[in-house]
Amino acid sequence: MQTKQQGVSGTDTEATVGTRERVVRAASRLLQQQGYEGTGIKLIAREAGATLGSVYHFFPGGKEELAVAAIQHGDQEFADMLRTGLDSADDPATAVENCARHLATALRASGWTEGCPVTSTALETLGRAPSIQEACSQALRNWQNVLSAHFTRSGFTSEQAHDLACTVLSALEGAEVTSQVFRSEQPLLTTGRHMAQLVRSYS
Amino acid sequence: MQTKQQGVSGTDTEATVGTRERVVRAASRLLQQQGYEGTGIKLIAREAGATLGSVYHFFPGGKEELAVAAIQHGDQEFADMLRTGLDSADDPATAVENCARHLATALRASGWTEGCPVTSTALETLGRAPSIQEACSQALRNWQNVLSAHFTRSGFTSEQAHDLACTVLSALEGAEVTSQVFRSEQPLLTTGRHMAQLVRSYS
Repeated sequence: MQTKQQGVSGTDTEATVGTRERVVRAASRLLQQQGYEGTGIKLIAREAGATLGSVYHFFPGGKEELAVAAIQHGDQEFADMLRTGLDSADDPATAVENCARHLATALRASGWTEGCPVTSTALETLGRAPSIQEACSQALRNWQNVLSAHFTRSGFTSEQAHDLACTVLSALEGAEVTSQVFRSEQPLLTTGRHMAQLVRSYS
Repeated sequence: MQTKQQGVSGTDTEATVGTRERVVRAASRLLQQQGYEGTGIKLIAREAGATLGSVYHFFPGGKEELAVAAIQHGDQEFADMLRTGLDSADDPATAVENCARHLATALRASGWTEGCPVTSTALETLGRAPSIQEACSQALRNWQNVLSAHFTRSGFTSEQAHDLACTVLSALEGAEVTSQVFRSEQPLLTTGRHMAQLVRSYS
């Protein structure tokens, strides 16, 4: 967390890309750990090892614009984590259970602080920051699509796949919060086992 | 939301109880709607129709102490809502689905703003406000116990009831957030139907 990667790349262009990415990653991590309202743009700059001027250079719209980029970054990261879990087994029930295990391991490794990259920010800004709401909505939709595509490939009808994706994602999101509050992998592991049971109940 | 109930009860004692309760209710609603960090104690006082002095009279520990009381208030309200849903049917699967329907109707009625009374505050204060974390943890535990007791009465073993309660609560919590972000009852209704399917898969 205190590690500050300095942009020491060879050309100006690479250095510029590096700074923007560091800022987005720092913002994403801080939003996950302490939400939108509690995260100031100065803290984001400090954590990214960037000047406040360079943060505003890349994000002239300030914290709201930066939060959108951070949510989009978290969107991609969480989608990759879901894909890794789903690709770990041919059987869709086992794959879903592996996803939950994967999330539980990552959550414990972060000291229970790095859960879903959108939940806290989404709830804090409900009805008050349309661009952030849109990014949160797109992230949830993207993750549902990752799950749905996996269920369709496993032989479910598109309606079944869509509905299962909705429930499995909601259950994993909720279990992640419960695991964070209880500081225990158990809620995610139990929910993962039950989601596998639900997937199997179709056959 | 702008309604301010004035404490016009007959005796000093009643008036005092009235003010404290108004403050706690306003805090609970504001934490639900916009989280912990974005909710100032002045706004809570204004929404409750109370002076800042009277808020500090009842909560000398300030916002953190008030947040604990607000979480405990939300804990009881949400437990009552769960009980109402569960008591609506003899069959536990139908009862769980009714719970989800009940939550979806209430969420829509609030303009999608009044979801779970602990999720946002719990995530924002993770590792930084032990008394709030404890209240959030107790609330989740209480709701799991309400569900677990219902499953036990319906003939599940205590281990099955405990595990099902964990998953059903996590799924409803996650679906509530998804419904809020999508401004749609669908995630809660789909998740409720699947939780009923999960409960039935035991028999």
